[in-house]
Amino acid sequence: MENVFNRIRNQRLHEKVVSAEEAASWIKNGMTLGLSGFTRAGDAKAVPMALAERAKSEKLKVNVYTGASLGSDIDKLFAEVGLLHKRLPFQADPTMRRKINQGEFYFIDQHLSKTSEMVRAQVLEPIDFAIVEAIAITEDGMIIPTTSVGNSMVFAQHARSIIVEINLAQPQSLEGLHDLYEPGKQGERTPIPISRPDDRIGTLGIPVDMSKVRGIVFTNQTDSPSTITAPDKDTETIARHLIAFLRQEVRAGRLTNRLAPLQSGIGSVSNAVFHGLLQSEFTDLEVYSEVLQDAVFDLMDAGKVRFASCCSITLSAPKMEQVFPNLEKYRDRLILRPQELSNHPEVIRRMGLIAINTALEFDIYGNVNSTHVLGTQMMNGIGGSGDFARNARISVFVTKSIAKDGNISSIVPFVSHVDHTEHDVDVVVTEQGYADLRGLAPRERAELIIDRCAHPLYREALLDYYKEALTRGGQTPHVLEKALSWHSNYKQSGTMLQKVLSL
Amino acid sequence: MENVFNRIRNQRLHEKVVSAEEAASWIKNGMTLGLSGFTRAGDAKAVPMALAERAKSEKLKVNVYTGASLGSDIDKLFAEVGLLHKRLPFQADPTMRRKINQGEFYFIDQHLSKTSEMVRAQVLEPIDFAIVEAIAITEDGMIIPTTSVGNSMVFAQHARSIIVEINLAQPQSLEGLHDLYEPGKQGERTPIPISRPDDRIGTLGIPVDMSKVRGIVFTNQTDSPSTITAPDKDTETIARHLIAFLRQEVRAGRLTNRLAPLQSGIGSVSNAVFHGLLQSEFTDLEVYSEVLQDAVFDLMDAGKVRFASCCSITLSAPKMEQVFPNLEKYRDRLILRPQELSNHPEVIRRMGLIAINTALEFDIYGNVNSTHVLGTQMMNGIGGSGDFARNARISVFVTKSIAKDGNISSIVPFVSHVDHTEHDVDVVVTEQGYADLRGLAPRERAELIIDRCAHPLYREALLDYYKEALTRGGQTPHVLEKALSWHSNYKQSGTMLQKVLSL
Repeated sequence: MENVFNRIRNQRLHEKVVSAEEAASWIKNGMTLGLSGFTRAGDAKAVPMALAERAKSEKLKVNVYTGASLGSDIDKLFAEVGLLHKRLPFQADPTMRRKINQGEFYFIDQHLSKTSEMVRAQVLEPIDFAIVEAIAITEDGMIIPTTSVGNSMVFAQHARSIIVEINLAQPQSLEGLHDLYEPGKQGERTPIPISRPDDRIGTLGIPVDMSKVRGIVFTNQTDSPSTITAPDKDTETIARHLIAFLRQEVRAGRLTNRLAPLQSGIGSVSNAVFHGLLQSEFTDLEVYSEVLQDAVFDLMDAGKVRFASCCSITLSAPKMEQVFPNLEKYRDRLILRPQELSNHPEVIRRMGLIAINTALEFDIYGNVNSTHVLGTQMMNGIGGSGDFARNARISVFVTKSIAKDGNISSIVPFVSHVDHTEHDVDVVVTEQGYADLRGLAPRERAELIIDRCAHPLYREALLDYYKEALTRGGQTPHVLEKALSWHSNYKQSGTMLQKVLSL
Repeated sequence: MENVFNRIRNQRLHEKVVSAEEAASWIKNGMTLGLSGFTRAGDAKAVPMALAERAKSEKLKVNVYTGASLGSDIDKLFAEVGLLHKRLPFQADPTMRRKINQGEFYFIDQHLSKTSEMVRAQVLEPIDFAIVEAIAITEDGMIIPTTSVGNSMVFAQHARSIIVEINLAQPQSLEGLHDLYEPGKQGERTPIPISRPDDRIGTLGIPVDMSKVRGIVFTNQTDSPSTITAPDKDTETIARHLIAFLRQEVRAGRLTNRLAPLQSGIGSVSNAVFHGLLQSEFTDLEVYSEVLQDAVFDLMDAGKVRFASCCSITLSAPKMEQVFPNLEKYRDRLILRPQELSNHPEVIRRMGLIAINTALEFDIYGNVNSTHVLGTQMMNGIGGSGDFARNARISVFVTKSIAKDGNISSIVPFVSHVDHTEHDVDVVVTEQGYADLRGLAPRERAELIIDRCAHPLYREALLDYYKEALTRGGQTPHVLEKALSWHSNYKQSGTMLQKVLSL
């Protein structure tokens, strides 16, 4: 085994090494923690777990800020032991989700580019401890992150104290892939000089005041692998429709076969859509996204993607085994950035991304619900979808047209919660087809969406609603007293199917 | 009278002078027009009127793109004569509004920073004629705009042909105030080098290929004055609450007495809010906004505002008489830019604006409806509110807590249309008070909004709804079957008041 102290290259910090339990003991009731971790990647592991252990036997409530969702069951543990007072800006754990929806603690669902601004502007509770996973700490006091950058930079720089978890299980070859840049306060900031996905603008690690490093904990635990499922028939069809749309854009002269830098949300559907590009004629692609999932590495291996920028790498277990021992292969084609840069409106608008995100449901006018089941129950959070959809060159939302064995239509008269307004939704795609909504008025949108995207089980009922709405008039016709009835019906009877209901 | 040909400083263009009727005769059925004009300022006047005249006696349908709303009753005329096939991205005329809501033509409601991107990317129908009001055309072929810039630059540069209206009634001293900059296509663009409101980055006029100038029409007609009403007791109270909030920010050390660059929406409430700053301790202010209304000039006169950047100047008749003959006084303190720069996410986020926009209604969780009366009837359009609210340092929405003699509550259980999601709404202000929603979860937001902002007439009913919703649970509790009942009730009985309804 290597001398672990090689990972702490500044001699003065060697004396800071402590156990996870000791580090966790510094955390007091009422404190605010900023944890590394973005969609299961690069999360601080040992200290949060030791903290959860403590909370089993003592009264302890803290605020927890992260990059996005955590792995290693930490969000589950936190929720189970009742450790949380406030959690932001994203989560994806079923237990935590249940507790959020029971109102057991406060969950603040934020655009993922925005948390850093709020920390910097001192709008949120100040961070007592940043707990950040690292590959190493350099001689000059830079923390080298692991498989995600997330909000680690802003947390470390603004926290009163820092605890570093050096994880020996993370591939040391990650060092050199990161690009850390602090844009500065709003109002004192100059342009962010990223004009292409491969622009490097910062340092290889997070520069911190070393006197703030209170403890260093060694760990040896891999990230939780992604739980994405393989593409299925429907997601393959969605990918095919999306490719058909992109071909239309190439034929119209608006794109070339190199497309434009691509962003894709997290999850199986998004991964399947990227996977579909393997079989396409598109080539020399660039990715500028939050999370790189398995399919991006397949695309790199196939020579389809020339460069990928992200703030997190979240892979399935088999893909981890392929990629992490061979990071050298990707070294010149990868950058890991802070999430405020991967998701920055300035950069997204400048480069004109093609943004592909997942909808829970959308309505006949193209408003998208990404977060709230039946308008009330939080699924995961808006994540970066708003950052990307609002500023993209083309904002695409994908979903299967039905769910729960056909008892839910993902296309509804009126979404039960709006995360993305019609203004931010250019193209919607289901396994039924795609609707290109750009430059269309609401009435045009409704006809196209129902015709191209709705499942045949629901097409007629949607048309009936729309026709009745037309009799009421308006720019965006609705029958207000029926607008949310599909959701109410599902809640009462377990289906949105009208025919079943009228039997 | 001056020699009008002094306004056409390139000799070769002198032969292009034609009558408005002749220029209008070039426009064919099915064409697409890009007109200058933003909130009544700087609109092309004579050719559109001649075109409307033609449409009275012949079959003529065109698409009309503008900066924002037009003055001179042009939108009214267009709507009355049935000239329109498609209109975008904003309007504010009662007749046009009625026709839109009757579905007589297509209205596409857009973020005002986005139209230019869509023109550049060739997503919209290509523009046959740009019709642009000007002060002059320079020797080297630059069109000098008048009281607004709006989308004139992108229209002129992308149109097949250009018609220039040189308006002798516009103050010639406007020349020199404009700053025209073309950011280039997405993906080929470099950072927009505006870091402060007074940064000048472009040319004094719109550079165009002179061979595209097909005709030049002389006009002599002032802009339609703004119809804003004077501050009333309620809007003065709203301003006072907003100032109280800003003082809290100064006390917390998050702002100084110079605040941050200010943006304010169009209309009487916004103007009144700015007017309220006259009586405040805030000083040396900067404005970075779409439209400058009367109050900004009052603030400049009082030495409160040191610099103001905009894309349009829209004044009341008395204020026009004060300001326009004395533009020299403001010369070093004013810039007029294209609306894609006044509203650019990149610049707004960088400078960290304080954005103050008007809501039609907002709900107990802070989602805002800016556009659709009862969820269906278009009022004006989203305008720039989305550009600003999403990217601001602090996004404020203001409205009176009731309307229609108390029969409408502007705070509702569930907004009937969402233009701004809870993620983009930091502070809501009514004459009842303000609610600072930053860093709060939905349940915290609901309690604060009902307590601080709702009118006493509706506070109890909102609390009742919220309490019932809590029994259903969820991150964002709702009683789906009652969520839109306030709007349905108003539609049926003319009031949202529960007590009246239950009598």
